[in-house]
Amino acid sequence: MTTLEPVKVGICGLGTVGSGTFNVLMRNADEIARRAGRPLVVEQVGARRDNPDCDLTGINITRDVFEVARNPEIDVVVELIGGYDVARQLVLEAIDNGKHVVTANKALIAVHGNEIFQAAAEKGVIVAFEAAVAGGIPVIKSLREGLGGNKIQWLAGIINGTGNFILTHMSEDGRDFDDVLAEAQALGYAEADPTFDVEGIDAAHKLTILASIAYGVPLQFEKAYTEGISQITSEDIEQADNLGYTIKHLGISCRTEEGIELRVHPTLLPKQRLLANVHGVKNAIEIMGDAVGPTLYYGAGAGAEPTASAVVADLLDVARDMATEHKYRTPYLAFSGINEQGEAAPQVLPMENIVTAYYLRLQAVDRPGVLARVASILSEQGISIEALIQKEATEGELVPIIMMTHRTRESSMNEAIRQLEALADVAGSVTRIRVENLDDNA
Amino acid sequence: MTTLEPVKVGICGLGTVGSGTFNVLMRNADEIARRAGRPLVVEQVGARRDNPDCDLTGINITRDVFEVARNPEIDVVVELIGGYDVARQLVLEAIDNGKHVVTANKALIAVHGNEIFQAAAEKGVIVAFEAAVAGGIPVIKSLREGLGGNKIQWLAGIINGTGNFILTHMSEDGRDFDDVLAEAQALGYAEADPTFDVEGIDAAHKLTILASIAYGVPLQFEKAYTEGISQITSEDIEQADNLGYTIKHLGISCRTEEGIELRVHPTLLPKQRLLANVHGVKNAIEIMGDAVGPTLYYGAGAGAEPTASAVVADLLDVARDMATEHKYRTPYLAFSGINEQGEAAPQVLPMENIVTAYYLRLQAVDRPGVLARVASILSEQGISIEALIQKEATEGELVPIIMMTHRTRESSMNEAIRQLEALADVAGSVTRIRVENLDDNA
Repeated sequence: MTTLEPVKVGICGLGTVGSGTFNVLMRNADEIARRAGRPLVVEQVGARRDNPDCDLTGINITRDVFEVARNPEIDVVVELIGGYDVARQLVLEAIDNGKHVVTANKALIAVHGNEIFQAAAEKGVIVAFEAAVAGGIPVIKSLREGLGGNKIQWLAGIINGTGNFILTHMSEDGRDFDDVLAEAQALGYAEADPTFDVEGIDAAHKLTILASIAYGVPLQFEKAYTEGISQITSEDIEQADNLGYTIKHLGISCRTEEGIELRVHPTLLPKQRLLANVHGVKNAIEIMGDAVGPTLYYGAGAGAEPTASAVVADLLDVARDMATEHKYRTPYLAFSGINEQGEAAPQVLPMENIVTAYYLRLQAVDRPGVLARVASILSEQGISIEALIQKEATEGELVPIIMMTHRTRESSMNEAIRQLEALADVAGSVTRIRVENLDDNA
Repeated sequence: MTTLEPVKVGICGLGTVGSGTFNVLMRNADEIARRAGRPLVVEQVGARRDNPDCDLTGINITRDVFEVARNPEIDVVVELIGGYDVARQLVLEAIDNGKHVVTANKALIAVHGNEIFQAAAEKGVIVAFEAAVAGGIPVIKSLREGLGGNKIQWLAGIINGTGNFILTHMSEDGRDFDDVLAEAQALGYAEADPTFDVEGIDAAHKLTILASIAYGVPLQFEKAYTEGISQITSEDIEQADNLGYTIKHLGISCRTEEGIELRVHPTLLPKQRLLANVHGVKNAIEIMGDAVGPTLYYGAGAGAEPTASAVVADLLDVARDMATEHKYRTPYLAFSGINEQGEAAPQVLPMENIVTAYYLRLQAVDRPGVLARVASILSEQGISIEALIQKEATEGELVPIIMMTHRTRESSMNEAIRQLEALADVAGSVTRIRVENLDDNA
């Protein structure tokens, strides 16, 4: 084996993930060099300020991250500053200077990935982003390489730890959303403005990336359906529990005859499913391949060193590819020619076209014929009921009706809900949560 | 991107995995070519007989697998004949002829891997073996590449589906080992001679491979400790359940200050652990890295197409590497220079040196002072008791005593058990099952 020069790494950003990456590269340098066949050396760090968690003695530091992208000594720029605009400029400038790029930035890849990969392909450089999805879980590598013999049929994941922490504690302690969110914020698991996490935007970024790699379609974040967990009540969690289900916030992507489903929403999962038993801030992704069947990947989806683990794995891949002549390597999004498919590429389906089962909860006036009118509306839309719970009401009070339906088209369900809410018997809005059984053949 | 010639594949063996591999390569040819950037073509099949599951129309077939290893047209030989001797000859001859090798043969790699990798390194060819461990789960790739930034601390896995099927049904239905084994044999999950599976030899092969990749040590199957599940009784399963544990047959490897633990044995796991909830023939491996923390990989550990999924993933890697000048690639066992470590390499520990917690069950005569004598023996060996269940006995009958201990050294436990069995109060032998909590910091 040829003796190879060290790989010179420039780290941009020294926040949580940046400091974790720096520390892992330092602490495990020997082990990493034995795996890479050559040392990985931190040549420069670009950060607005030092981080007390890192011993930066002897490290070349700049306050301007763009200096790193321009430093002729550097082989790989590691973008860990986050956000959209400056990160995009930084990455494009690094590529333009012929540098490989490793990033943990899911928003950047989901929104600007097509442009970035195009630029990288033209320059013949690598852009690696394992850390962008599910932190330290090597799910990109597993999907892109490990399951490369499969036609991927669907994938479903708990890919936002904040949301899973909140739902876990709502479920275990019978507490309300706002209460657990406040605790998550106090513990540092949720941001002061939690929108990105609890409304599913972060999960949709990650799902967009996974779906592209699974099916070989361009990144289309703007077409992802996103629904958060802020409307989930402890009442729904309890009812789901009675029916044998756990509520999880899932990113789901299925390949159907019609196209690609791409959706993030709260979901009832049968309790015995492994995915339903992933608790707290942990992440897990289940992937169904036509040859392998279901596989599942579990671990820490965020945090300094778990994310650093994925960044360093990408650096190892870069180190291996640098030793070749770049004639061929793993395509950025697993498949070659993704953007040249034209009309032949499967389309992301509008949410109205997806097919799933539903949990419905509504408040009805307790008078004769209510149930018949409710059932009749569903029946007219071709929706059949799998289970129904009607609680007893005290005289004159509203009575809750809970239903589980068989699989139906979302557009039919939308129409049924519109009609249900128009009934004089039904008070307020109808709660609707989608149900996935994740059967082996779903 | 350069247009590349098709990769010409020769499949040796057309049994379960061979036919699965052939069929997946045919069915998913387009998808695979898009991932590889070039077609993967089955150039020749070597098999003693055709397999009715495969449409072999137009395929070049030979009854002599060695013809495939000698065929100058072939780039990659896929060894799926199984067994030790012929498989070893076939693989070495393929390597000698400059061909890359993909194999699903865990016994071959665990026992002859050091020799095979040596030969492959000299010839500059790839030997890939993802399918040798846990079937379709991409755990080799995850451990070797995806977790490459970590110092691996321990790994524990359900890596034999037959054993897990038997324990699952013993546990769920309260049935005895022999009864469930007979069912597993009828269903085709267990061989007529089930020794390899139920005595842990197959699991030890896989564990040997995982440990080498995790820690960068040579393959040392002969040093693995192996204990099967045939002695597990429904009584033990019930007692474990009462204590909050599930019994699983685990392969466990830990890196300690003293060396590497390498052991396969029945193990009590806390019920809430994800690994304890892996049922039936499914496999799962939990891996603890110093940066990433615990990650878990779950899926089908055997079967035609799940195993084929891993074989094809290896073929994709081979295809990618073939396009380079082979200056550098992923080391066979994750680390370079494994065999050049000499004295510095961590040693596999004798079983006497491992440290774990224990479940003990013994039958004692119901007379005063028995418990004191039992406790005193444990105490003298420095073993402390975490939980104790003593059942009430009917007059004159033996009374079962069940104990859970804190972590202690196996040699101390061996001595304690020797002394316990010598007590006049204790009838028969002492049942000992090891306990692992798989704590994040264990």
